[in-house]
Amino acid sequence: MQQTGRQIVLAARPTGIPKSTDFREEEVAVPEPGDGEVLLATNYLSLDPYMRGRMDDRKSYSTPTPIGGVMEGDVVAEVIRSRHPDYRIGDKVLARLGWRTHAVSNGAGLTKLDSRFSPVTTALGVLGMPGLTAYTGLLTIGKPRANETVVVAAASGPVGSLVGQIAKIKGARAVGIAGGTQKCAFVRNELGFDAVIDHRSPRFAEELAAACPNGIDVYFELVGGRVWHAVMPLLNEFARVPVCGLIAQYNSSGQPDGPDRLPATMREVLSRSLTLRGFIVREFWDQRPTFLGEVSTWMSEGRVRFREDIVKGLANAPEAFIGMLEGTNFGKLVVEIDEG
Amino acid sequence: MQQTGRQIVLAARPTGIPKSTDFREEEVAVPEPGDGEVLLATNYLSLDPYMRGRMDDRKSYSTPTPIGGVMEGDVVAEVIRSRHPDYRIGDKVLARLGWRTHAVSNGAGLTKLDSRFSPVTTALGVLGMPGLTAYTGLLTIGKPRANETVVVAAASGPVGSLVGQIAKIKGARAVGIAGGTQKCAFVRNELGFDAVIDHRSPRFAEELAAACPNGIDVYFELVGGRVWHAVMPLLNEFARVPVCGLIAQYNSSGQPDGPDRLPATMREVLSRSLTLRGFIVREFWDQRPTFLGEVSTWMSEGRVRFREDIVKGLANAPEAFIGMLEGTNFGKLVVEIDEG
Repeated sequence: MQQTGRQIVLAARPTGIPKSTDFREEEVAVPEPGDGEVLLATNYLSLDPYMRGRMDDRKSYSTPTPIGGVMEGDVVAEVIRSRHPDYRIGDKVLARLGWRTHAVSNGAGLTKLDSRFSPVTTALGVLGMPGLTAYTGLLTIGKPRANETVVVAAASGPVGSLVGQIAKIKGARAVGIAGGTQKCAFVRNELGFDAVIDHRSPRFAEELAAACPNGIDVYFELVGGRVWHAVMPLLNEFARVPVCGLIAQYNSSGQPDGPDRLPATMREVLSRSLTLRGFIVREFWDQRPTFLGEVSTWMSEGRVRFREDIVKGLANAPEAFIGMLEGTNFGKLVVEIDEG
Repeated sequence: MQQTGRQIVLAARPTGIPKSTDFREEEVAVPEPGDGEVLLATNYLSLDPYMRGRMDDRKSYSTPTPIGGVMEGDVVAEVIRSRHPDYRIGDKVLARLGWRTHAVSNGAGLTKLDSRFSPVTTALGVLGMPGLTAYTGLLTIGKPRANETVVVAAASGPVGSLVGQIAKIKGARAVGIAGGTQKCAFVRNELGFDAVIDHRSPRFAEELAAACPNGIDVYFELVGGRVWHAVMPLLNEFARVPVCGLIAQYNSSGQPDGPDRLPATMREVLSRSLTLRGFIVREFWDQRPTFLGEVSTWMSEGRVRFREDIVKGLANAPEAFIGMLEGTNFGKLVVEIDEG
């Protein structure tokens, strides 16, 4: 009896914001595990901003997804058949299966999930790649000291929310930037940031300056664009800027019109002894055990909170992903695959 | 008997490249040293690119020189009268006297020069601020490893020449950029760089790429502008860019026309995990003893060479300074003050 699974492939390379027609859902036969293999069923698919980059054909830190190729992504999956000695039916694993309901694996690249950490979706968020990104980028590059000011945008999202909460734990002042009243209230009241600014405000730059009376010592860069323009004049001497994402730029192509802001930016880097440091989380993968221990402890102490935004059904992944790039989701975006 | 000295003041704020009328020479009375003071006569005045920044009124890492104020600068001076217990007539000191023939000091900010280091002008160049800039920026921020490629522009100048020679000592490959056949020959043959590119070549970017077949791991930034544009595509993953000067930009004002190169630059910082780090040499002042010991040893072993460009007469300082900004001098520019 051949079971049927589904997958979502890249149908066309987007220009600007992706459209639903840039994706295509396909029915495929569920493969049979061979000797030494397991069959995995996806429970949860993680949607993350970096995926936008893989849809382009330009040189980046990873190979682009080919047209017709399955969209990449991390998932939480369950072993539903096993011919591998180390895995039993029911085991939960973290795996890089992509946007699909089933896959066969020989065990390479699988990480068994520790049942101490729950819900299981945290493996895709606060205790997963986004959490490790926040933890390592902030502590290894940003190095916030007590009473310094740390600013992060997308502050209600999985990376930004942890950046601000860890900054607080380290004794720094956390200033978040988010879009809309609801997200701002969450950042201020639930996550406990010292201040939050709505980037939709017409007086955004002035409000950010007012929220940072002692300037900015660490700016954790996730968005680029106009937020960066507002942050730059506030950076203190010796400020550190971990550059982790540029979501506001992901949908643009080519070079925007002038003026050319690069010479003035380099002048500020020089005259204020700034550090700009790009990073991809895999550089700091060896910090994962320390990260899991520390952040899970902070969670159990109530010092780290998180929010998930769970969308049901693989077919809804493209729309949810597009919404995330437009800022309409709220919390770590995860797709629950409810079809077995 | 009142002696007469001379000084050069800022007459007008330049727009673009300074003109000789932006400076004014003045006769002034030589002051009398009071109790606990010394009278200093300048022997050598150092001319350095950073001085261009002090002529502008814009916020920078230091206070601008006021109109009518004496131009700032480091000098080698001789004690010609002393009412200070620690100084005797004939003592040579490094001092921040500015562009003038005489000054009184109470000893604050004076550094007695060690007669082991000769000629005495090295205190303004290879063993002075430019040398410390090269040494600390390269080793503390650039951190070149064996077989990596280090690129530096203004390679025949006091900072660039030492950057490349220290890179070689550390086992890296040194690629210099200089202007004109004579300077390029000096960098290649006298300083021993592995390759040198003439930035005046119409095929500059291609020639730089050809000279860096394994990409660039450290780019020591002194110039900015089109050299930076040619370097950027060649930077390897995890490349380090100590940002020390932007001489090609010092004479421009306002923001140049587009396209806006900043978004693409930030994208490269992210996707290649680049480090851009501005610095001012005073941050690393505590490394001066180690620097002096190491570089003077390398000089005595013939592993570090230097070249000076000595201009005679304070009155010629403005013209020499303007020439330096245009790249017409060759070696560390020093003005010999031949009037007592």
